[in-house]
Amino acid sequence: MNENDNIALGKPPLLEGERLDDLLTHAYKIIQSKEVFSFSLDAVLLARFAGIPKKGRILDLCTGNGVIPLLLATRTDAAIEGVELQPRLADMARRSVAYNELQSRIAIREADLKTLPALQGGEAYDAVTVNPPYKPVGSGEHKGNLHQALARHEIGCTLEDVVSASARSVREGGRVSMVHRPSRLAEIMAAMQRYRLEPKRMRFVHSRAGAEANMVLIEASLGGRPELRLLPPLIVYEGEGRTYTEELLDVFYGRKKELNGTEANEGAEI
Amino acid sequence: MNENDNIALGKPPLLEGERLDDLLTHAYKIIQSKEVFSFSLDAVLLARFAGIPKKGRILDLCTGNGVIPLLLATRTDAAIEGVELQPRLADMARRSVAYNELQSRIAIREADLKTLPALQGGEAYDAVTVNPPYKPVGSGEHKGNLHQALARHEIGCTLEDVVSASARSVREGGRVSMVHRPSRLAEIMAAMQRYRLEPKRMRFVHSRAGAEANMVLIEASLGGRPELRLLPPLIVYEGEGRTYTEELLDVFYGRKKELNGTEANEGAEI
Repeated sequence: MNENDNIALGKPPLLEGERLDDLLTHAYKIIQSKEVFSFSLDAVLLARFAGIPKKGRILDLCTGNGVIPLLLATRTDAAIEGVELQPRLADMARRSVAYNELQSRIAIREADLKTLPALQGGEAYDAVTVNPPYKPVGSGEHKGNLHQALARHEIGCTLEDVVSASARSVREGGRVSMVHRPSRLAEIMAAMQRYRLEPKRMRFVHSRAGAEANMVLIEASLGGRPELRLLPPLIVYEGEGRTYTEELLDVFYGRKKELNGTEANEGAEI
Repeated sequence: MNENDNIALGKPPLLEGERLDDLLTHAYKIIQSKEVFSFSLDAVLLARFAGIPKKGRILDLCTGNGVIPLLLATRTDAAIEGVELQPRLADMARRSVAYNELQSRIAIREADLKTLPALQGGEAYDAVTVNPPYKPVGSGEHKGNLHQALARHEIGCTLEDVVSASARSVREGGRVSMVHRPSRLAEIMAAMQRYRLEPKRMRFVHSRAGAEANMVLIEASLGGRPELRLLPPLIVYEGEGRTYTEELLDVFYGRKKELNGTEANEGAEI
């Protein structure tokens, strides 16, 4: 099957520079573009780590090309909404959703998370996921194009904006899961504290055994009791090259349930 | 050499229930007691992890039987002061200092850290270390005797008291190093934030590979710039039994400088 076949079958068309990639081991495909947006390991690990309900409503902020909603759709029957600031990326995400015929389960909304309203009660989401830009402004954002700069640097939203929007969107006791850089962990935890998001589960990711961590997965609960579980470190590569470790493959394939996101009972505080 | 030899040589006497233990690979000995206080792996790892200056002044809070001052004395020529609330433990610590003839380098003060004054400028310490009680009150402190209860539970001082006393004692840019339980990390980081202690370096300790972390080593700088380094995880045991890993032995023997406390230049912000 090639791109023309897709069009013939009523699949959404690819734009210039875009390609259709396999989304890991799943049947799903995803539209990517080297120039505009391609998903990273960070997004995949977050989609595996996040505690999400089997039913209910999930919100993914900074959704990019929709990789996290697509991956979450393999774990849950919940309704998933992705919010993306950039029209070009929201469009890519929508076409990937359509390509996989997931329109009834995933909605992509083009919006600025800074202006999301405070939701309460039944309106609020059961879980929120977010893979935000990691770098402060003024740290080399001129080197990429605008799409890349917005995805990587806090131009469109700051860490504070992201945490605030997450807390405004999630229900009491609901979970917010984030992936970020360990260098900013103190800021993240302080911001979460300000918005009543209590860190409950954390996992550090190290490129190699013996290396400093370069990624942190963190799950917080709105209004939760202070008690944090620190999961085993996740080592990505082994040997000299880029061979994934067995434990990384376990995460990819969802083979170790206890290290991945717990499937929450609705209303339960886990 | 036995206890009577020690007395004959002018060494301080042991009290009932006390024993004289080797302090790891060093020439030093330490007075311990199963009933009163014996040092833990936590204290040893903190004494290796802590960033301390080669000269200057170091304060160890909750010093217990003085294990951390004794271990730090093998790494630095700085003057070290240990503060202990319990007269019985302060006395053990003083006798261990005397036994090792370190009175000119280590002073043990019997005091309540809650009443330590705020120090400034040249008065303030270059570094502070602390291995505080881990458990909140009301979590089983009646099971041990009073000595053990005070060492393990926040009866004599809370986490807030410990962080506050550390911040009041250390100079601007000086380091505060703490060992604690990961379950309380969010509280620790929030308390540090309140007292301008910026976390700079952190290492999680896991009993075994694949196990959740049960100890966290954290170093903060008073008024430091927000940027945290997350060191490789430290795995304690390998195999089925209680065999220490090579990396744990590296820490014990101080073989990997980069993973242990950096020797600070005075005034440098590391």
